[in-house]
Amino acid sequence: MLKEYELGTIYKGKLETGDDLLEKLTEIVKEKEITAGKVIALGAVKEAIISFYDQDKQEYEAEKLDESLEIVSLTGNISLKDGAPIIHAHIALGDEDGQLYGGHLEKGTTVFACEFIIEEYEGEAFTRGLDQQTGLPLWVK
Amino acid sequence: MLKEYELGTIYKGKLETGDDLLEKLTEIVKEKEITAGKVIALGAVKEAIISFYDQDKQEYEAEKLDESLEIVSLTGNISLKDGAPIIHAHIALGDEDGQLYGGHLEKGTTVFACEFIIEEYEGEAFTRGLDQQTGLPLWVK
Amino acid sequence: MLKEYELGTIYKGKLETGDDLLEKLTEIVKEKEITAGKVIALGAVKEAIISFYDQDKQEYEAEKLDESLEIVSLTGNISLKDGAPIIHAHIALGDEDGQLYGGHLEKGTTVFACEFIIEEYEGEAFTRGLDQQTGLPLWVK
Repeated sequence: MLKEYELGTIYKGKLETGDDLLEKLTEIVKEKEITAGKVIALGAVKEAIISFYDQDKQEYEAEKLDESLEIVSLTGNISLKDGAPIIHAHIALGDEDGQLYGGHLEKGTTVFACEFIIEEYEGEAFTRGLDQQTGLPLWVK
Repeated sequence: MLKEYELGTIYKGKLETGDDLLEKLTEIVKEKEITAGKVIALGAVKEAIISFYDQDKQEYEAEKLDESLEIVSLTGNISLKDGAPIIHAHIALGDEDGQLYGGHLEKGTTVFACEFIIEEYEGEAFTRGLDQQTGLPLWVK
Repeated sequence: MLKEYELGTIYKGKLETGDDLLEKLTEIVKEKEITAGKVIALGAVKEAIISFYDQDKQEYEAEKLDESLEIVSLTGNISLKDGAPIIHAHIALGDEDGQLYGGHLEKGTTVFACEFIIEEYEGEAFTRGLDQQTGLPLWVK
């Protein structure tokens, strides 16, 4: 399953202290009506919620990281789910000793400072739906 | 050593459960005849093989990670080696505790789910050859 | 705070063994007069200096990693500070056991081998200035 795109507008910006990282990025993507594209970011958070997908139980296990952390990498893509733009992002976070933690980015991750880049792709959007084999909301069309 | 490019087609897609992560991405790049560009991905694997380059011994030491892991980041570039497109990619993988592991992505890394973006660059491709100083297959022209 | 850009020239290249990772990338960005854009890289370093921002004390705490490490990810953006292009980059580094460390990339990180991609963005540059709330040099206009 492969689709072809051309680059549209590139958006660069910053979030504010206290913003919910995933919710705020999603809000921007919805406002700009971006249905395909890529998101990257760096910065720091005051606390984070990441999750790991248990491939046997087929469920996400969330973990709260209750400390200040650097956003060392954030890689996300944009597609549609239930008719609305959705960001699927994974994040790597560094603690004061430089130790890294990471996984699937969940709501509840609070921005300290964040600089992001959103690249809009022009072309037919992917749509998420339940994938029977993995139990995940993957691209079904 | 610096070359200039313009963006060509952007490819977005998913891999299937059981695919070899590096081999399948390489297959797509070869099919699309992409000789320069960038690859990113997120998702999860069933097991992984990563390696670390011993700078003194000048050899890669491979390590097998025999568990389910999130693909927290994958950064790769595309160039030519022995006349064929090759992907050089580094990967960060997260375990169920959110602990991260990573290094040079090797064949033998099995996809559970993977969403990728390949950006094709238009311009003169780099070609890999043995770099005497490092012992690595770097860009020699 | 959000600005819109179009993609300009893409630069792909490699650094030399012994280069200072951050200084050399910054030198290239200055030579090419890039005031907005993105930087990614992979490769390996002989030693690294990363830092963590203490959000309470509002100061960076640097940490020296005195060993060979893979560059597992490097995410950076380009803007202006005091009239000159500046790269803000975060890095993830992997040791011989595949364990990852990371944070804010500092000068003093010595390249073993490095392949980078710089994407120039065309549009109004962001300018860094002191942000009172965080104590960080964030984008103020």
